[in-house]
Amino acid sequence: MADTMQDRVRCKELHKLFTTPENCIQYFKDGMNLGWSGFTPVGYPKVVPIALADYVEKNNLQGKMKFNLFIGASVGAETEDRWASLNMIDRRWPYQTGKELGKAINSGKIRMGDKHLSMFAQDLKYGFYTKDQGGRLDLAIIEASAITEDGNIILSGSIGASNDIIDIADKIIIEINTGLPSFEGMHDIFMTDVPPYRKIIPITDARQRIGTPWVPTDKSKIVAIVESKLPDNGRALRGTDDVAQAIADNIVDFFSAEVKAGRLPKNLLPLQSGVGSIANAVVGGLTTSPFENLIVFTEVLQDTFLDFMDSGKCKYINCTSLSLSNEGFEIWWKNFDKYKDMVLMRPQQVSNNPEIIRRLGAIGMNTPLEFDIYAHANSTHAGGTKMLNGIGGSGDFERNSYISMMHCPSVRPSKTDEFGISGVVPKAPHVDHTEHDIDVLVTEQGLADLRGLCPVDRARCIIDKCAHPTYKDYLTDWLDRAIKKTGGHHEPVLLEEAYKLHLELEQNGTMRFWNK
Amino acid sequence: MADTMQDRVRCKELHKLFTTPENCIQYFKDGMNLGWSGFTPVGYPKVVPIALADYVEKNNLQGKMKFNLFIGASVGAETEDRWASLNMIDRRWPYQTGKELGKAINSGKIRMGDKHLSMFAQDLKYGFYTKDQGGRLDLAIIEASAITEDGNIILSGSIGASNDIIDIADKIIIEINTGLPSFEGMHDIFMTDVPPYRKIIPITDARQRIGTPWVPTDKSKIVAIVESKLPDNGRALRGTDDVAQAIADNIVDFFSAEVKAGRLPKNLLPLQSGVGSIANAVVGGLTTSPFENLIVFTEVLQDTFLDFMDSGKCKYINCTSLSLSNEGFEIWWKNFDKYKDMVLMRPQQVSNNPEIIRRLGAIGMNTPLEFDIYAHANSTHAGGTKMLNGIGGSGDFERNSYISMMHCPSVRPSKTDEFGISGVVPKAPHVDHTEHDIDVLVTEQGLADLRGLCPVDRARCIIDKCAHPTYKDYLTDWLDRAIKKTGGHHEPVLLEEAYKLHLELEQNGTMRFWNK
Repeated sequence: MADTMQDRVRCKELHKLFTTPENCIQYFKDGMNLGWSGFTPVGYPKVVPIALADYVEKNNLQGKMKFNLFIGASVGAETEDRWASLNMIDRRWPYQTGKELGKAINSGKIRMGDKHLSMFAQDLKYGFYTKDQGGRLDLAIIEASAITEDGNIILSGSIGASNDIIDIADKIIIEINTGLPSFEGMHDIFMTDVPPYRKIIPITDARQRIGTPWVPTDKSKIVAIVESKLPDNGRALRGTDDVAQAIADNIVDFFSAEVKAGRLPKNLLPLQSGVGSIANAVVGGLTTSPFENLIVFTEVLQDTFLDFMDSGKCKYINCTSLSLSNEGFEIWWKNFDKYKDMVLMRPQQVSNNPEIIRRLGAIGMNTPLEFDIYAHANSTHAGGTKMLNGIGGSGDFERNSYISMMHCPSVRPSKTDEFGISGVVPKAPHVDHTEHDIDVLVTEQGLADLRGLCPVDRARCIIDKCAHPTYKDYLTDWLDRAIKKTGGHHEPVLLEEAYKLHLELEQNGTMRFWNK
Repeated sequence: MADTMQDRVRCKELHKLFTTPENCIQYFKDGMNLGWSGFTPVGYPKVVPIALADYVEKNNLQGKMKFNLFIGASVGAETEDRWASLNMIDRRWPYQTGKELGKAINSGKIRMGDKHLSMFAQDLKYGFYTKDQGGRLDLAIIEASAITEDGNIILSGSIGASNDIIDIADKIIIEINTGLPSFEGMHDIFMTDVPPYRKIIPITDARQRIGTPWVPTDKSKIVAIVESKLPDNGRALRGTDDVAQAIADNIVDFFSAEVKAGRLPKNLLPLQSGVGSIANAVVGGLTTSPFENLIVFTEVLQDTFLDFMDSGKCKYINCTSLSLSNEGFEIWWKNFDKYKDMVLMRPQQVSNNPEIIRRLGAIGMNTPLEFDIYAHANSTHAGGTKMLNGIGGSGDFERNSYISMMHCPSVRPSKTDEFGISGVVPKAPHVDHTEHDIDVLVTEQGLADLRGLCPVDRARCIIDKCAHPTYKDYLTDWLDRAIKKTGGHHEPVLLEEAYKLHLELEQNGTMRFWNK
């Protein structure tokens, strides 16, 4: 028998706040700063945002009820993407994956801010994003599994920035999701302070609990509690492919060599892995590798990590969100008794914190759109201008990891050319990660270990190891001409031809202009 | 009476290692990895590097004795710059200011690596820069004030990476500088470990001692001890000017407004300040400001900080180096009894550590060469290609500070045009600091508070507040055309005209092409 609202809300005096989603509409005013729970898209509020969207649609209020949305990361398309299509969003921080949202962001209709995830929650708490309104949020909408006897909130499938949002919001609406089992016990909530009162984050082992299983909550701020039975609109399962597999093989070989050289212990170091097919393949590769007792210290737990735990190779996972597909969640709940002792969720201020990433010596692995011959990487802007999703946590990890690795295919198809888009370019048209941060670059062609190399040596190594054969001559020629033109400057660049490949793609549909 | 070598080297059994600089030449072999003490240029070895340079010169060994040099930051021109002119350097990490060194780096003769200073020392210790030689340094040359009874090294006017260099070097040559008073007691040496054994860095207050006043030293590695009486070739005193003063005024006004808004405490938060005339002016501005009990948490203590302490406004300074001029050092030693209780030197792994910078909530203030309308900043490469000095610690602080600020003049003269070089450009030709990191940009024209702004709003704000009047129309027109061309993408850019200003400067001597 499923739990009832009475079971889940253990603080009896809050039962008087039970209401309907429609009844919550009264709390929303045009121009408000809203905080939502949720992260990649799990644990976000559903019935209230949907009810408000219905209300706006029915009453033709498009453009007349607009909000600034602050959410840990992306949430389900049925909520914020629908809001975007109803012109209900003015500002949106710091990461998103919505189709309609993307369109509005890239046509100047929604103002997006793109921030490191560890810093987003921190700066939100510092009041930096809402400084003209006293640094507060007007209203939080939080999906929860339960509420404790004292009125503290027990979150659901993600933490993200929810703890900080609850802290700085003037009013809180809670959606208790009784359609899902309770996630109670999976969270470790550590609250940070504002300087000069910030404390040490005392994690020296990924398995260490340092906080509470609930979010400390001022229950007098709660104005409504509604029931939800809607599931998360989880990420679709992403398969792997030959290219991803080859990248994974290169990485596993590299790990073996590093262990042999004594630069990594036999069980490696805590692994961070981004999202997508390459991350899946890497984790898959580790599942069948000789490495044992592996620890994961990452943002999101994806489907492939379930196999990784099942294989016995992975001992423990830290994350801030269970970013599972619907099929993944089925497996999760079936084996919950096993997984619950192997997984801990932390706030994104902690899961992505430089302090912890450096101390634990994480291995950061993320997929950029492209990188250049000097190891500057573009993770966010197609063609240097069009926002994809946001930098997410990639900067937190790439800057601070023991080994900072980025991986992508050496080449992708454009509409008219199977090799139309090179992953290795002369100069990145947008820089999210600089040459000062990246240690290792990987494509299916090979792995470039850049540690200890000066820019020109780095460029030769990247072209040699990572570029697709069809682009090698162009890249080498570009580099040679840049060296000649500058007389051997530290980092030779042809400013006048910096973006020739990108302009060719834009104008002629392929970067391979010599192939016309 | 000055101290003798016998006084300073308190470990008697090491007295047998006393020798001459010339006798140390035997320890140097072509191709070696060397670590030196020293930082911006204080506390570096002098008599041994000079003796080796003399030897190379006398015996025509130019190009036949080449070394890889790993030093915390820059050191005196009479040592490494002379080495550069004698073709004695192959690789040089991670920051330098030498004229001959710069020439060699920008003509492909010396291979330089440019790394965040907090990370340089860490990665050096991890063995990443010398991984093909087992991750060790062959030889360290360390300037010291003294050696303890147990053989532990007491450094001189800087720490930098010396503690880590001493740790990983196979052999150590020590120069005891008896020409200067001893710096004993000024250092707080905290040694970090290699993951998974790294510890918490337990600083919650800048005044807190967490280490030892000496560097833990395996004395069996010491092969020679020589006497030096040479002074540091200190930074020349840099004055301030009207532009720097106007920038400082803008910053002090901003601090006042932040205190009023409740986002900064009355004594602000620990201040980090880069080097140069703007930094001088900012500190000068604070000296006459209403703020009291100020704390400095920075890399280098410059002359201007002496006045700051004298004024009673500054309560305490953390740094990794006393980067004083010769005149500054005179004042320092005259008032040493006062200053010694107000200043603490830490290793650059600690002084620049993200963990501490975030925890204390430092205010980072650094001078880039230029920044663009979206708040990407270029700190290192003139014209995008020619290395100046290196990123230094600017990335450590700009990424992690409570408020990340960068400041530079809105315009500088080129050879032929007093307004030939704009500090605000459409697109930075080299990105050291990304839009994800910068909160506030300042020129003498004004201050742009970018917190909470999307890219296009940021661009309007930067052009409005920071650009020089002569460049405003061009920048606005560029932005408008970029918005039009992309249909309002998230971060509109004209790739084909990204570097028009820089190319005009290169080809015609001024960025103001419309003024021809």
